[in-house]
Amino acid sequence: MTKQIPWQEKPEGCTDVMWRYSKNPIISRNAIPSSNSIFNSAVVPFKDGFAGVFRCDNKAVQMNIHAGFSKNGMDWEINHHPILMQQGNTSMISSDYKYDPRVTFIEDRYWITWCNGYHGPTIGIAYTFDFVNFYQCENAFLPFNRNGVLFPQKINGKYAMLSRPSDNGHTPFGDIFISYSPDMKYWGEHRNVMQTAPFEESAWQCTKIGAGSVPFLTEEGWLMFYHGVINTCNGFRYSMGAAILDKDTPEIVKYRTKPYLLAPAVPYEQTGDVPNVVFPCAALHNTEEDKVAVYYGAADTVVALAFGKISEIIKFTKENTLP
Amino acid sequence: MTKQIPWQEKPEGCTDVMWRYSKNPIISRNAIPSSNSIFNSAVVPFKDGFAGVFRCDNKAVQMNIHAGFSKNGMDWEINHHPILMQQGNTSMISSDYKYDPRVTFIEDRYWITWCNGYHGPTIGIAYTFDFVNFYQCENAFLPFNRNGVLFPQKINGKYAMLSRPSDNGHTPFGDIFISYSPDMKYWGEHRNVMQTAPFEESAWQCTKIGAGSVPFLTEEGWLMFYHGVINTCNGFRYSMGAAILDKDTPEIVKYRTKPYLLAPAVPYEQTGDVPNVVFPCAALHNTEEDKVAVYYGAADTVVALAFGKISEIIKFTKENTLP
Amino acid sequence: MTKQIPWQEKPEGCTDVMWRYSKNPIISRNAIPSSNSIFNSAVVPFKDGFAGVFRCDNKAVQMNIHAGFSKNGMDWEINHHPILMQQGNTSMISSDYKYDPRVTFIEDRYWITWCNGYHGPTIGIAYTFDFVNFYQCENAFLPFNRNGVLFPQKINGKYAMLSRPSDNGHTPFGDIFISYSPDMKYWGEHRNVMQTAPFEESAWQCTKIGAGSVPFLTEEGWLMFYHGVINTCNGFRYSMGAAILDKDTPEIVKYRTKPYLLAPAVPYEQTGDVPNVVFPCAALHNTEEDKVAVYYGAADTVVALAFGKISEIIKFTKENTLP
Amino acid sequence: MTKQIPWQEKPEGCTDVMWRYSKNPIISRNAIPSSNSIFNSAVVPFKDGFAGVFRCDNKAVQMNIHAGFSKNGMDWEINHHPILMQQGNTSMISSDYKYDPRVTFIEDRYWITWCNGYHGPTIGIAYTFDFVNFYQCENAFLPFNRNGVLFPQKINGKYAMLSRPSDNGHTPFGDIFISYSPDMKYWGEHRNVMQTAPFEESAWQCTKIGAGSVPFLTEEGWLMFYHGVINTCNGFRYSMGAAILDKDTPEIVKYRTKPYLLAPAVPYEQTGDVPNVVFPCAALHNTEEDKVAVYYGAADTVVALAFGKISEIIKFTKENTLP
Amino acid sequence: MTKQIPWQEKPEGCTDVMWRYSKNPIISRNAIPSSNSIFNSAVVPFKDGFAGVFRCDNKAVQMNIHAGFSKNGMDWEINHHPILMQQGNTSMISSDYKYDPRVTFIEDRYWITWCNGYHGPTIGIAYTFDFVNFYQCENAFLPFNRNGVLFPQKINGKYAMLSRPSDNGHTPFGDIFISYSPDMKYWGEHRNVMQTAPFEESAWQCTKIGAGSVPFLTEEGWLMFYHGVINTCNGFRYSMGAAILDKDTPEIVKYRTKPYLLAPAVPYEQTGDVPNVVFPCAALHNTEEDKVAVYYGAADTVVALAFGKISEIIKFTKENTLP
Amino acid sequence: MTKQIPWQEKPEGCTDVMWRYSKNPIISRNAIPSSNSIFNSAVVPFKDGFAGVFRCDNKAVQMNIHAGFSKNGMDWEINHHPILMQQGNTSMISSDYKYDPRVTFIEDRYWITWCNGYHGPTIGIAYTFDFVNFYQCENAFLPFNRNGVLFPQKINGKYAMLSRPSDNGHTPFGDIFISYSPDMKYWGEHRNVMQTAPFEESAWQCTKIGAGSVPFLTEEGWLMFYHGVINTCNGFRYSMGAAILDKDTPEIVKYRTKPYLLAPAVPYEQTGDVPNVVFPCAALHNTEEDKVAVYYGAADTVVALAFGKISEIIKFTKENTLP
Repeated sequence: MTKQIPWQEKPEGCTDVMWRYSKNPIISRNAIPSSNSIFNSAVVPFKDGFAGVFRCDNKAVQMNIHAGFSKNGMDWEINHHPILMQQGNTSMISSDYKYDPRVTFIEDRYWITWCNGYHGPTIGIAYTFDFVNFYQCENAFLPFNRNGVLFPQKINGKYAMLSRPSDNGHTPFGDIFISYSPDMKYWGEHRNVMQTAPFEESAWQCTKIGAGSVPFLTEEGWLMFYHGVINTCNGFRYSMGAAILDKDTPEIVKYRTKPYLLAPAVPYEQTGDVPNVVFPCAALHNTEEDKVAVYYGAADTVVALAFGKISEIIKFTKENTLP
Repeated sequence: MTKQIPWQEKPEGCTDVMWRYSKNPIISRNAIPSSNSIFNSAVVPFKDGFAGVFRCDNKAVQMNIHAGFSKNGMDWEINHHPILMQQGNTSMISSDYKYDPRVTFIEDRYWITWCNGYHGPTIGIAYTFDFVNFYQCENAFLPFNRNGVLFPQKINGKYAMLSRPSDNGHTPFGDIFISYSPDMKYWGEHRNVMQTAPFEESAWQCTKIGAGSVPFLTEEGWLMFYHGVINTCNGFRYSMGAAILDKDTPEIVKYRTKPYLLAPAVPYEQTGDVPNVVFPCAALHNTEEDKVAVYYGAADTVVALAFGKISEIIKFTKENTLP
Repeated sequence: MTKQIPWQEKPEGCTDVMWRYSKNPIISRNAIPSSNSIFNSAVVPFKDGFAGVFRCDNKAVQMNIHAGFSKNGMDWEINHHPILMQQGNTSMISSDYKYDPRVTFIEDRYWITWCNGYHGPTIGIAYTFDFVNFYQCENAFLPFNRNGVLFPQKINGKYAMLSRPSDNGHTPFGDIFISYSPDMKYWGEHRNVMQTAPFEESAWQCTKIGAGSVPFLTEEGWLMFYHGVINTCNGFRYSMGAAILDKDTPEIVKYRTKPYLLAPAVPYEQTGDVPNVVFPCAALHNTEEDKVAVYYGAADTVVALAFGKISEIIKFTKENTLP
Repeated sequence: MTKQIPWQEKPEGCTDVMWRYSKNPIISRNAIPSSNSIFNSAVVPFKDGFAGVFRCDNKAVQMNIHAGFSKNGMDWEINHHPILMQQGNTSMISSDYKYDPRVTFIEDRYWITWCNGYHGPTIGIAYTFDFVNFYQCENAFLPFNRNGVLFPQKINGKYAMLSRPSDNGHTPFGDIFISYSPDMKYWGEHRNVMQTAPFEESAWQCTKIGAGSVPFLTEEGWLMFYHGVINTCNGFRYSMGAAILDKDTPEIVKYRTKPYLLAPAVPYEQTGDVPNVVFPCAALHNTEEDKVAVYYGAADTVVALAFGKISEIIKFTKENTLP
Repeated sequence: MTKQIPWQEKPEGCTDVMWRYSKNPIISRNAIPSSNSIFNSAVVPFKDGFAGVFRCDNKAVQMNIHAGFSKNGMDWEINHHPILMQQGNTSMISSDYKYDPRVTFIEDRYWITWCNGYHGPTIGIAYTFDFVNFYQCENAFLPFNRNGVLFPQKINGKYAMLSRPSDNGHTPFGDIFISYSPDMKYWGEHRNVMQTAPFEESAWQCTKIGAGSVPFLTEEGWLMFYHGVINTCNGFRYSMGAAILDKDTPEIVKYRTKPYLLAPAVPYEQTGDVPNVVFPCAALHNTEEDKVAVYYGAADTVVALAFGKISEIIKFTKENTLP
Repeated sequence: MTKQIPWQEKPEGCTDVMWRYSKNPIISRNAIPSSNSIFNSAVVPFKDGFAGVFRCDNKAVQMNIHAGFSKNGMDWEINHHPILMQQGNTSMISSDYKYDPRVTFIEDRYWITWCNGYHGPTIGIAYTFDFVNFYQCENAFLPFNRNGVLFPQKINGKYAMLSRPSDNGHTPFGDIFISYSPDMKYWGEHRNVMQTAPFEESAWQCTKIGAGSVPFLTEEGWLMFYHGVINTCNGFRYSMGAAILDKDTPEIVKYRTKPYLLAPAVPYEQTGDVPNVVFPCAALHNTEEDKVAVYYGAADTVVALAFGKISEIIKFTKENTLP
């Protein structure tokens, strides 16, 4: 990936591995006329710029996903209307709501996964070639599930997806699993990948965890940003960490950050429709330049950016890994 | 109603139907020496200005209601001591606490309703002619109830009151009902008026709803502002919508906003004793000038004002109604 | 009341104030072809025998009330079809379900109250002259309420009803209130009558209490049987006590049993659809003979009878009263 | 199916569609030396008699499944040791616990499904040719799931399985879904089949439902016995109903009993390790003789039998269907 | 201990390590006139027979402890009035309620511990020389605690007590701890002794555990019977196991039964005020004759007896120990 | 205490008894490189300045305590590494986590108490002479406990500690107790000191309360700052009050503030890892100058300072005491 991705150098004096963009949030809650909030959204390189799929809750607080485009990855034009799905590998494209999309390019097309409302939350799948026409496929799993994230290439000849089995409410528990599919229609070979951490060892990820960005390959394996949650007496607090999964058998976690990489600490993360949320959904990377830009939802209200050096993140993850 | 009500024109570029007063909050949390917070309060035209009844929680966080006066509806003098009730149509004027008042003028006097603590929350009723002497009447209902709002005139010869049956805690459910009384002492003919909306259709009002301002008559029927609540993983979020009820049979909802009209989005609504609360309790209107000014509690801490054109609100409500 | 009521002498050696009928249960769960269970039902003297209104849950476990007749109060013919209500003082006779009826004769007719499903449980009211035609009136209260019990005569010129404000679920709390009505349509003057007892003093009634049988006048005042509930680690246990209320101001409790009078201890009370339930709904009394027969639902499955001497019950209640 | 299945004629005077075996329970809680309880088990015709897979909780209350054999379907020899799984289509045959098995013959072998503990409850799959050697396959789904039931033949060329998505606890909700697989390894095309009934219409199945016996074809479609649950104040009560699913598109429910067919009413159903449970897991049928014998777990403690005429069950289901 | 303890030989054909007394329950719920139930009680050899302290809930369901005496340990005379405490090592002998006593002889007197109500449940301590005069001492611990059990001799010069820290409700968790005291007044050196077992390994003790009988010395160490609890969908189920603790450092668990020794399986254990409870509080042993008799509360309603051979219990515990 | 303590005069126009330092917070969340937050910490005069023990949650959100030093009590150098405990009066110094420390000088050394993770939260004890070497002692109590605060001198020859018995979660209840020890190893004579206030009287302290700062002697008795909690629909809100305990029998509360002295009202108290928290842990006082400086954690994120005149606080507490 050699495209120029969004970037800003680390602020002077900053000793953290990752840092916030100084002009955050890059997408405000009312960036389109109908929106109550825009957050938990995903982007990919597209043509000479970037395309993305954005969670836009409207002012009735109906959750839906919209397509959007940008030249530089920071300034975005988001469609005012939700994506209208056409039939992909199924005629059953029922959807009570759509939220928390991720986008991945595999082989010849862009795949979108999201939390799809079908008798409860499950993982919806669609593909597009152009971010204009979208084709919805069979839901990957039975409810209740959230945070479905595809790998950007087949593994051992099969599509692979991370997800977080959930319940029908706010889900005060949850591990990350992986599932495989030969055809994006039938899924199996489910494996537990990562579990919540013991409170004593890493409390920010002791209540539940969920895959965040689409993993990308590094020398050490698949690098993925994920969220972890602690249940305080005043609600859930969502922070971000990184995990490195084995290249060929990604249910094997090689390293995983014991400290978080980013946690709610600035006003647009600490206040909003759901206070204290940092929720990564995408990562643009430039391996040559050793850069990664993470898109994350902040306080369930806006979209923000954080940056880091890939090599430093890998080093930090290895040196500060959970056992 | 031809009196000059509080007003500020819509800010340039604003595309919303209602907008906030630029000098919000109009009443700060410590506007009287003893107060922890002042919010969820109601006002009416009175003499050459306005009078009101204000929820003032003191620094022991005891909830009580105070009278107040204003020339312009924006700058208020609030009594430092709570209202001392005299006996109205009963000698039983027990009250463990008083909060969330509404005020209505009917025929010859001002009626106050509030959440009255009598073996749990129920609806207290009192009247005054002068906002100096207040006469407490029988509680309208058995506990547990909140958000009692009187119509400003008799309907089919009877007083009419909206309310929200509740439980003895934070009540994670609740519809709006109407009840009738021939005499402000005995109540009956209870009817369900509005129910919570399905999550998929209008999530901001999917957990519970409650009457807000005293309804006023428009060509389409009774226009009332109400609050709706969504239960997020970090607590309740209170927003404001509008409903138009049938003139003669107000248990019939003609229209009701699917999108909210105002939701927590600025600091004084997003942080405070209870974050993310917009809670309307009164609306001053001037039909000739097509104006309405809504008083709402913000974050259970302060009082704020929002404005709108009546005709635009009606048009918006009709065009964006829940089925 | 001089009619011959059901009766069986106290078993030899029994030292309790009340005792069970040796042929309990008197009505089995499948006494009519469609029934899953018949329980929590009420009877009154009628013509040369007795009539009653019976809670019959059918095999879809829909709750409804049926009329029934008996010569001796022990052997009952229960109608196979639920009561079909006609319009009484209202055209709004909606009912999602009906359960736990009580029956009272006042002046010229029999009044039935029950838990009526109208957007949650509330108190339904109907009257009949003949137990053939029933006329449904306005619900007494807003939801959520259960255990509405009328006094058998007007008090100070008004109808009086006990009830237990509740929530929309299994209600882990609840006191007995009284309300008054001039006309069986509008209700007010709500007063708290009895509260749950402290765990340390009388644990069987520490979670919630509810009026049971229609009160009847004794020299000491209104004698009423009520149920009390303790929340064990394996669910609610319902027992029966007695209270004596002031004749003219029945919100005044003169005496109230600290020990229970009857608690689940035999198989038909200990096992069934809801184990460990003794739930009184009616009491036939014969003052001349100093007898009372209490009808109670057992284990939410069958109807049973208990007997006692009125004078002994009064004496016991006075000598063992809660402070 | 022409084999002689267990049978006992309807007792005289019985007006129910299904009736209990007079010698119930057929398998006692301590039928093998190590067992705490044996219940929720499944049987199929096998050779000249029957074979089955039995849930045997041992005295450490570890849940596991055992094979067993019977000549007449009533008297069973159950292996003293749990089934030891060999690798089927996977090497990952991890299992923290196994419970609630079902057995189905498809094409050339017997398939067993059960609730398999793998980071929470999910659906385990295994096959056997002889009830001696068992080969465990990939779990069908991600956790959390229970009550996986296979159809006895492929539908439109694919295996079909009913299941009930759940949570990680006692699950106070739950619908029946169907999923399809080309190969017993990857699953998809998930559809909601049946939902819980409204409390007002059929309360015994208002909390959750789950597939019970393996469906078998009748003239009207697939006949399946399922369980429904109501949440009383003293816990869950499990009853049994029947549903008829469309032959070619079994996600279409043609008919479904509004009344239950069997509900806890006798001591071995009302008391035991979990009181008030009737839980069907298998049905032997003889179409020629119009007979069906349902095996059900009672009170999570023993195995019992109920009988019925297939034609009567179908007639009853059609005439008493939920809308 | 050479006294003749209650005993009955193992029934023929019984393969269990422990067995029930055929005349259970030995104490009925109404063994004294005022009692609602008598259970969870403890006994010791005393003079030429036995004495005990009995939990008697009266008919107000107030919990208290009574003294009682028996010649043979099976037939008991229980005092009709609760123990009236005198001041022991403190003047603060407040007690809202008393339940679940244990009795131990140490050096020169009998010590009673029980769950004492002082701003929540904690461990009360008293001593007696004669079971007539009782002297109450300082509560051992802060609330919230239950199941305090003393060792029958000092260990390393200090008194030692097992207990189960709890919460202020039904406590869905709980381990056994040990604490030491030089003087029965001040306690410290608190150590965790035994934790709940993983659900997968021994579900009957996966929710909470609590010390039961006073430990007695065997060749292998201290043998103690304890209760374990599983939380079913219909409530807690209490069973009994055994543990062997190190003689000199009893916080070391040498062996502990993975299977239970006794679990609710007969009517007086399965139904009652709290169904499905087996709760050991005392064990009389005769080492010479290799006998032990365990007193346990059944269904929170009555007292029952179980027997076993000490050598067999030790052998079973060693051979079936939790890791 | 005549040392110069941190101080700032009351702002002009302020009518409150206590006021915030204008440069709050004095310690930022990232004051040391590894910290996620620094809050709920305690200080004492030490040598020519001050020393303290600080709760530093690191970026894995592991809770631990660090030593720190300051010349003026406002500018602090905090050690980058947690305190490494040596063995005090025990070899058992296990600790899963350490948080919310308090520090007290008694006789010859500084004692630290904190919430110590040992099979749940309990009260850890350690001493130091120099804030370099720390010696950990036996935990004072069994779990579950929090907010252990020592008195600065023996009372009647014994050490005295306040604490708040808790549960193993967020604890929605809790009173303050006192316990005594002859030797800092064994504890007893537990007494309830202060209970939560009725909602109607003082809602800010109606859910739970906990000791805050180490008490110091005044003419009226021991003056202690404590926290109180109200459970709003959006979580707990922690405020600060004061209590005056009897000099010789400190379980006697002489006075206690009905209004709070400080409640969350500024951004660093209203937003952070846990919004709306004011949590006092230490108070430096100068009796000669009539000054007190209270250190409190704000929003579980930073450390802040509030000031007051001792005489005014005493006067206010006496005049505004809870009954």
